[in-house]
Amino acid sequence: MSDINESLTDQIAALAEGQQTPLSLAEKALERANALADLNAFVAIDENIVMTQAKAATLRRQRGDPLSPIDGIPIAVKDNYLTRDYPTTACSNAAPLEPKGIDATVVGNLRDAGATIFGKTNMHEWAYGATNTTSNIGATRNPHNHDHITGGSSGGSGAAVAAGIVSAALGSDTGGSVRIPSSACGIYGFKPSYGRASRHGVLPLSWSLDAPGPMATELQDIVHLLPYFLGADAKDSSTAHAEAFKTVPDAKPVHLINLSGPGLERSSEVNFVINDALRRSDAKVGQASLGDVDQYFAAWEAILHCEASAYHSQLLAENAEGYSSVIRAHLEAGTQLSGVELLEAQKIRARLVQHLTRDLKGWDALVLPTLPVPAPAHGEDWQEFGKRKVTTQDSMTWFCWIGNLAGFPCITIPVGTSSKGLPIGMMLMGRPGQDEALLAVARIIDRSIRKQR
Amino acid sequence: MSDINESLTDQIAALAEGQQTPLSLAEKALERANALADLNAFVAIDENIVMTQAKAATLRRQRGDPLSPIDGIPIAVKDNYLTRDYPTTACSNAAPLEPKGIDATVVGNLRDAGATIFGKTNMHEWAYGATNTTSNIGATRNPHNHDHITGGSSGGSGAAVAAGIVSAALGSDTGGSVRIPSSACGIYGFKPSYGRASRHGVLPLSWSLDAPGPMATELQDIVHLLPYFLGADAKDSSTAHAEAFKTVPDAKPVHLINLSGPGLERSSEVNFVINDALRRSDAKVGQASLGDVDQYFAAWEAILHCEASAYHSQLLAENAEGYSSVIRAHLEAGTQLSGVELLEAQKIRARLVQHLTRDLKGWDALVLPTLPVPAPAHGEDWQEFGKRKVTTQDSMTWFCWIGNLAGFPCITIPVGTSSKGLPIGMMLMGRPGQDEALLAVARIIDRSIRKQR
Repeated sequence: MSDINESLTDQIAALAEGQQTPLSLAEKALERANALADLNAFVAIDENIVMTQAKAATLRRQRGDPLSPIDGIPIAVKDNYLTRDYPTTACSNAAPLEPKGIDATVVGNLRDAGATIFGKTNMHEWAYGATNTTSNIGATRNPHNHDHITGGSSGGSGAAVAAGIVSAALGSDTGGSVRIPSSACGIYGFKPSYGRASRHGVLPLSWSLDAPGPMATELQDIVHLLPYFLGADAKDSSTAHAEAFKTVPDAKPVHLINLSGPGLERSSEVNFVINDALRRSDAKVGQASLGDVDQYFAAWEAILHCEASAYHSQLLAENAEGYSSVIRAHLEAGTQLSGVELLEAQKIRARLVQHLTRDLKGWDALVLPTLPVPAPAHGEDWQEFGKRKVTTQDSMTWFCWIGNLAGFPCITIPVGTSSKGLPIGMMLMGRPGQDEALLAVARIIDRSIRKQR
Repeated sequence: MSDINESLTDQIAALAEGQQTPLSLAEKALERANALADLNAFVAIDENIVMTQAKAATLRRQRGDPLSPIDGIPIAVKDNYLTRDYPTTACSNAAPLEPKGIDATVVGNLRDAGATIFGKTNMHEWAYGATNTTSNIGATRNPHNHDHITGGSSGGSGAAVAAGIVSAALGSDTGGSVRIPSSACGIYGFKPSYGRASRHGVLPLSWSLDAPGPMATELQDIVHLLPYFLGADAKDSSTAHAEAFKTVPDAKPVHLINLSGPGLERSSEVNFVINDALRRSDAKVGQASLGDVDQYFAAWEAILHCEASAYHSQLLAENAEGYSSVIRAHLEAGTQLSGVELLEAQKIRARLVQHLTRDLKGWDALVLPTLPVPAPAHGEDWQEFGKRKVTTQDSMTWFCWIGNLAGFPCITIPVGTSSKGLPIGMMLMGRPGQDEALLAVARIIDRSIRKQR
């Protein structure tokens, strides 16, 4: 579907050439959101808030004084980013927040550039799950087939972009929550390096794993949006050494390592599409396994559960009933892990980084499918692939958590379609802090795929 | 006693001027160690190992080719530093290590400079305690009064220096283990900023709190030794951003903040000596309290216990009987803390740093007594001071843990004597990474005290 939607890059050109105005873009987005309400992509869209911003942007453009190339482009925001106009609920009844005049840093950056903050998107409750089927407003539907899930936790953002309501949206990613719905919905999603993008004003799930990221219609959209994400922010100490976005380096022949082996199984259909896409690119492709994937996964889970339970401990004590029973059970289970287990997990985390950077050599990007299966149908509790049978939840994070545990930048790009017409995405992981170099690799793969169509 | 002992600085001059040779220094140290064996300061001194090094150093000096100004000076080493010639036991029967040709980085640095690695000093078992009364070779005795303890965990190093056996020794400090015996024995002890000195080859107690540090006869000795401690070491990732030692800046009038209030009580005798020393200095002295000291202390304890239990978990499972019962009990208790409690402790740690650096303004050093009481007598289980009654163990770490939890550089300098003739030390804490600036402050205080004598 992304091929037929107008991208942010298209919209930048249309605004610059006067074929569109911020008002016409906003009206079209509102119309389309109304027409596609059954996707359940949005928690809140306030027509007045949208039109007020769009009118101001239109006036700026009429004066010939736009704030930036994206001035007046509607961008949707996951409902765990604080926004000064909309409430923030994380799609939970536990602690809905009224707007208090505070924008998350990324939202503020986009607003300062004139973007029309379009509405708040549906998400997996508290971002603590990857299917987008647990939400106080109900599950999202996949625009490619409403009987299928979007994946999550940024599922509303994925659906809104894939359906062409907006050209771009904001997500957050702790174990794949930007990349999973991007892949399942056939769009582009980028998780920055840990510590390079400010999380200030994004409700945390697990602060040592969380990253905010853009989800968009084409690869160049990501290039346009990343400057609003990257760079130091005094309000997020993890970004103390973060560099601002630099230009994407020139594409050159690249060396990829295609990861596979025990713990990294995928369906034969997904495997075929990924390998076919690699074959069509000019990249040199090596092969490697990841060692003890189960141990690394357990470390990711331990860190996630401990940090989430620590963040929620006070609220859980005060208002346990506000949480859905499944999220409450996760949070209670997280309190059972010992400090020694957490420290062991942190050590294993360091070993993963060492394995990827020292044992594997000379790579420009590591390759995995983003998901082992195309988007599952609603109501499916289990997924079977490559002699594995795992919960649908575990199938969604199957590969993605690796990027969070390592802290590496990751992108998913749509590379094909399943026999049922559902999108299949390829994940590329780059070196920490080298988000721009990862974009250069993605561009090579992306071009080779688009060329063939 | 330190006034009558030859300092490392004295020895540097005596060697340069030919009044001493490495051999004469080694012989004198061996003689004195034998004469003062009842201090129980040493786990191991091997006369052959000492004399072999001293002969080589003497030859180098005879050739006019010393490796450094400290070439041939005997330096004692706490028994948790790996040494390529001596075994390393941490004064425990749990896992004595035969020498394997590996020196801790700091030991290697000193050896490369020609220092005579003199022997291994008695310590509190695994450094997990601050009295030096739990050791598989028995307690150390305070050179100022054998009926009193040295404090610990680097108590053997403190006794060896204070007794004039060696002019300097190595300690390690997780909650005061360099500063406590330095203060109790009337010498100088320095804990570097966290992450500025390599711990490679020093058996850990709690890796996010541990720092290695020098203990010596006069302040200038510390200045001579710190270059061998500070700087990046690829074998200790915490030092990735560590700067090498720079020159101590010129002394200028300084602004101190004298910390006191609830949780920071001390005996009236200690209080008098500290305030008298401050009064005699030219420093501008402000006053502040530390807020919720109990909460900060609990955070230090939680981090210490979790990390120690994590480090020892495998060995404890394999050889619980090797530990003394008290250390085993500590390690078993540490496994009971939850991951959420550990994360909460880490948050409180960040709050302490923020309090000391943002809420308290404009200071060059923070001042506390190093200990709330002079060295306790052997057999005393409790200490009473300032309306507090605490275990002798807790009285030893009473102030010192603050520097470890914050990660700040700290020094203790002897500033007076109790009515019973036991030393009293003043602790100065500097800003993180500014170890040299802390030495400049210490020099001002130290000169004003020495001048008065």
